[in-house]
Amino acid sequence: MIVVMKQGASSTQISNVVARIEQSGCSAHLSEGEERTIIGIIGNGRPLDHEQIERMSGVERTVPILRPFKLASREFHPHNSVVKINGCVIGGEQLIVMAGPCAIESKAQLGEAARAVKEAGAHVLRGGAFKPRTSPYSFQGLGEEGLRIMADVRQEIDLPVITEVTAPDLVPLVTTFANILQIGARNMHNYALLHAVGESQRPVLLKRGMMSTIEELLMAAEYILSHGNSNVILCERGIRTFETYTRNTLDISAVPVLKELTHLPIVVDPSHGTGKWSLVEPMAKAAIAAGADGLIIEVHPRPEEALSDGGQSLKPDRFADLMANLAPIAQAVGRTL
Amino acid sequence: MIVVMKQGASSTQISNVVARIEQSGCSAHLSEGEERTIIGIIGNGRPLDHEQIERMSGVERTVPILRPFKLASREFHPHNSVVKINGCVIGGEQLIVMAGPCAIESKAQLGEAARAVKEAGAHVLRGGAFKPRTSPYSFQGLGEEGLRIMADVRQEIDLPVITEVTAPDLVPLVTTFANILQIGARNMHNYALLHAVGESQRPVLLKRGMMSTIEELLMAAEYILSHGNSNVILCERGIRTFETYTRNTLDISAVPVLKELTHLPIVVDPSHGTGKWSLVEPMAKAAIAAGADGLIIEVHPRPEEALSDGGQSLKPDRFADLMANLAPIAQAVGRTL
Amino acid sequence: MIVVMKQGASSTQISNVVARIEQSGCSAHLSEGEERTIIGIIGNGRPLDHEQIERMSGVERTVPILRPFKLASREFHPHNSVVKINGCVIGGEQLIVMAGPCAIESKAQLGEAARAVKEAGAHVLRGGAFKPRTSPYSFQGLGEEGLRIMADVRQEIDLPVITEVTAPDLVPLVTTFANILQIGARNMHNYALLHAVGESQRPVLLKRGMMSTIEELLMAAEYILSHGNSNVILCERGIRTFETYTRNTLDISAVPVLKELTHLPIVVDPSHGTGKWSLVEPMAKAAIAAGADGLIIEVHPRPEEALSDGGQSLKPDRFADLMANLAPIAQAVGRTL
Amino acid sequence: MIVVMKQGASSTQISNVVARIEQSGCSAHLSEGEERTIIGIIGNGRPLDHEQIERMSGVERTVPILRPFKLASREFHPHNSVVKINGCVIGGEQLIVMAGPCAIESKAQLGEAARAVKEAGAHVLRGGAFKPRTSPYSFQGLGEEGLRIMADVRQEIDLPVITEVTAPDLVPLVTTFANILQIGARNMHNYALLHAVGESQRPVLLKRGMMSTIEELLMAAEYILSHGNSNVILCERGIRTFETYTRNTLDISAVPVLKELTHLPIVVDPSHGTGKWSLVEPMAKAAIAAGADGLIIEVHPRPEEALSDGGQSLKPDRFADLMANLAPIAQAVGRTL
Repeated sequence: MIVVMKQGASSTQISNVVARIEQSGCSAHLSEGEERTIIGIIGNGRPLDHEQIERMSGVERTVPILRPFKLASREFHPHNSVVKINGCVIGGEQLIVMAGPCAIESKAQLGEAARAVKEAGAHVLRGGAFKPRTSPYSFQGLGEEGLRIMADVRQEIDLPVITEVTAPDLVPLVTTFANILQIGARNMHNYALLHAVGESQRPVLLKRGMMSTIEELLMAAEYILSHGNSNVILCERGIRTFETYTRNTLDISAVPVLKELTHLPIVVDPSHGTGKWSLVEPMAKAAIAAGADGLIIEVHPRPEEALSDGGQSLKPDRFADLMANLAPIAQAVGRTL
Repeated sequence: MIVVMKQGASSTQISNVVARIEQSGCSAHLSEGEERTIIGIIGNGRPLDHEQIERMSGVERTVPILRPFKLASREFHPHNSVVKINGCVIGGEQLIVMAGPCAIESKAQLGEAARAVKEAGAHVLRGGAFKPRTSPYSFQGLGEEGLRIMADVRQEIDLPVITEVTAPDLVPLVTTFANILQIGARNMHNYALLHAVGESQRPVLLKRGMMSTIEELLMAAEYILSHGNSNVILCERGIRTFETYTRNTLDISAVPVLKELTHLPIVVDPSHGTGKWSLVEPMAKAAIAAGADGLIIEVHPRPEEALSDGGQSLKPDRFADLMANLAPIAQAVGRTL
Repeated sequence: MIVVMKQGASSTQISNVVARIEQSGCSAHLSEGEERTIIGIIGNGRPLDHEQIERMSGVERTVPILRPFKLASREFHPHNSVVKINGCVIGGEQLIVMAGPCAIESKAQLGEAARAVKEAGAHVLRGGAFKPRTSPYSFQGLGEEGLRIMADVRQEIDLPVITEVTAPDLVPLVTTFANILQIGARNMHNYALLHAVGESQRPVLLKRGMMSTIEELLMAAEYILSHGNSNVILCERGIRTFETYTRNTLDISAVPVLKELTHLPIVVDPSHGTGKWSLVEPMAKAAIAAGADGLIIEVHPRPEEALSDGGQSLKPDRFADLMANLAPIAQAVGRTL
Repeated sequence: MIVVMKQGASSTQISNVVARIEQSGCSAHLSEGEERTIIGIIGNGRPLDHEQIERMSGVERTVPILRPFKLASREFHPHNSVVKINGCVIGGEQLIVMAGPCAIESKAQLGEAARAVKEAGAHVLRGGAFKPRTSPYSFQGLGEEGLRIMADVRQEIDLPVITEVTAPDLVPLVTTFANILQIGARNMHNYALLHAVGESQRPVLLKRGMMSTIEELLMAAEYILSHGNSNVILCERGIRTFETYTRNTLDISAVPVLKELTHLPIVVDPSHGTGKWSLVEPMAKAAIAAGADGLIIEVHPRPEEALSDGGQSLKPDRFADLMANLAPIAQAVGRTL
């Protein structure tokens, strides 16, 4: 961290800041410029809160130098890490596609979707039992009954499954049924929940909050990693901007940025990221071209009857076309599908 | 809801949409314009999901007409509602000021802050025991010990207290200690938590998420109201924008907008809303001038030693000045302090 | 346009709105719902300003039905339009790559860059003579001297050139030298300038403003088209969001959205869109995969000596690699490079 | 500026950066931390472009220390500067209110508005002759005829006038008629226009772009100041955010921030800043409470007939009420109206 003193800061103010830095076990390094004195903080003493320093007399502001995430950073772990689920390896040469309906509505619906996505080549079945919805009057998911349906379908179809967990006390239940625990965008800052899945060893797909920076996504991953679970998959699913034509703005550049900053695998959700089924295929292609390790896509046998997010769901035949059209893009970037 | 058909939609496509509307028990009202057919949905049948309709063939988009919140809306409840806490009435003629440290650090610290804010005229003591922090390595609050300190100080100072609750299973514990439960900005979309505080009868201060629209804030309030708790206080605390000089952009216009849309009382948090203590006083004045029912402000006896958010905390003497300077503004808008 | 009346609007208020609509030569179509009366406006009378209607007594709000752009819309012109420049066709099967330095610094610099990008397969040479810079103390470009250098290099290298025009009175001068006139992101709302290039017949590359919606981009194109110039190429170059790791957030989803809404060709600028050279290649691939008609990329022989935007410029050898790596992506989406 | 080297940067890479800094006439100051080497740049040599340094091998990023504006900064000019227009002083104890219609439509309309706002106590008459409009099909203003109407009304009513100038070649014409030149939000980045008004000595009201940071606003002011015109008034008029209930989000916190950073006077536009007439009064009060030096407000005799922005215009009687209600707020913050 660097401390920038105000223009004309007195020598007492400067020495007070230096004293505070040294109290914490770090050392202070002064640069006296023409217009400002700058103090570098060096060493591994007790962490200093930048806001405390900023409240000291004569201080203009502080500038962080090191990134605040450690376990998630590529500096800490230079090679790509992979997450293994049954036969699947997420983060390796092969791209992984997770597909299925937004919400589990019935065994017939999930089964139909599952057979279709498996036939088209998907590797993981998605489906929500606990649905966080903006309105208390909207369908909130089938809950535990949905999990049981999912388990039945998994046995029949033989695909690993991913489903969302929405509260810390649901983690044990959902872990019994799911191969991958999903943390939704609205819960990326739900630290009690991050803590709970961090204590599990089950792989976690962590979605970027619609209001969260890339650094905050990595700090949320750090919560999970620092509680002992190293099986974290990141997911870009669109951020909120002033543009209203799409539901969110899918930040494809987050893919190469994350590849620079972290060793964790990254998948992209073009369904929630755009909110429109017609945009799913071009954005899925863009994600793969930019280096994503996989995709998570909504597929519903009859989207016009879906109980949630029908407008962004693909029909099975369009999903099959998408998988066929993705293969040459995968090949063009040296991956397989 | 209105359904806008695509240019050149066929009569079969139009009659399919009409049939779907009528199936749900509503009636459909066609307007055939020069370039588009528009279908109005009238009546109180089962709610139709706009995304289902948007997935039907020939449909371009849908347009909502009614706002999705009911219990929170001023149409439903034209008069201002008030929330009573011990002697305080929030939402009446008198402005309510909640003040205290961001985090409870010790009995000495909280006691010193409490005496200072009471003397300056604050009505409620704030202090966090469970702190949601971006970094897993930052101070996370004293937890239950903090609640006990808060209860001790309350007894000594005789001010009602507000503190944050961060997980559904903590609601019973926090309710034992706090007069007002705070839902933080990061948890505005934590529906399990909203559900849990909705089943309590304890007053709830609900903070707007930093990237949540005013409508989403009201939908979060609707969760609490629809689970039976009508004691909801809304709180504007700044939204995330592209501007980086302030930590957030405090959306003062949310105050008069909320006064139009809802009957619930509204307080403003100029400390988190700006992130800088020097901006707290002007923004507190602006909030009152714009019609807010109260303020929630961070005060710390020694901000340069604070374990969280020291940079935005006022010292006790500055808080006393602020209270003195707010009084004439309150009077200018017909309120008392 | 649809007019939504307030709950409880009186019959006089409703008939006043109807009268105003009919005065303008349109007809009004009433839908009386349980909670609101809605009035549809039908016909081709004189255009009604929605703000005038919204100011009428009893009106809650208005909802636009038709998009405000006409000449730019795909409904008006269903087939893709193409822009021809010397041998190049922009918007056809072949992808077009424009490359070169951000600013023209000298004949040696531009010549070196031009030879490199031509050899790597670029189709158009870019280079700025008039540079809009945030600071009045930054290098503002060589101006007319830069244009003369560009003309010399074009003659030598035989590539068409694109350069920015920044003020209406510079349009005749820049038109003498450039094959494509560029309107920069900061000038997308400079209507006097759009008017001036609209009266030229020279192809125009119109960059999306960093604060502009897709609809506003198309309205800016409409200015140029409506003044008689149909040779408009749209350019996505990143929008401003809360994310600060990248300079802007390159909105790749704008590509398929624009392909739905308009017949105009679309190119993407991954250099300004990210601000970091290391992100240029993955985002260039993403743009092509999503359906862009071309790219505009900064290449500088020695970026560490560039007078502007060195951090986002590719070195010639990296640009050559990029072109080689783009070819299979182009092929995978049925295009050639 | 500070240069942060990558983890593990070699001593050659470090000495190359030092050499580059010294070449420019500055000196370099090294801090070798546990994980990073940091290089401070000290002195007044030729300015170094941060992007050039960032392109050097081994450099992770640069951090600016000094703010890029000088003439506009409070450090350069610690006392408030004032702008004098006829009898008015903008930036002194008295608050200045500019009011009138968005667009000049006729002599009758402007005259009626002018008499009303003068009677209510406004100090300056506003009215647009050149209107930048999003759509080429919207009313673009009366142009020079509008300026002549404004001059006639000014003579009759005896109020100074403010009107917008939209292109560099219009500056001489508009200067003949107007007491204050307005630069609209869409032109804040139109550097040719800023240059042109900078060469005039006429006072300029510079509106913040709807997606411009406070620092960029000050850099735009710096363009005007550095071309010799010191009569600059800043104007906050709302920024673009994700919130759609208001047209823009009026950033009231920009007022105290600007008061810290600059000596220039600041006015607020609550009409464009909200887009809704019902929000104008509370936001005008908030602006004054936060420390603004004045307001610019739209008033139209018959807003439901206005040719532009009718929805945000006040009727004369509401404007008179607003002026009466502002007086006690002004007094509460030690100002007069």
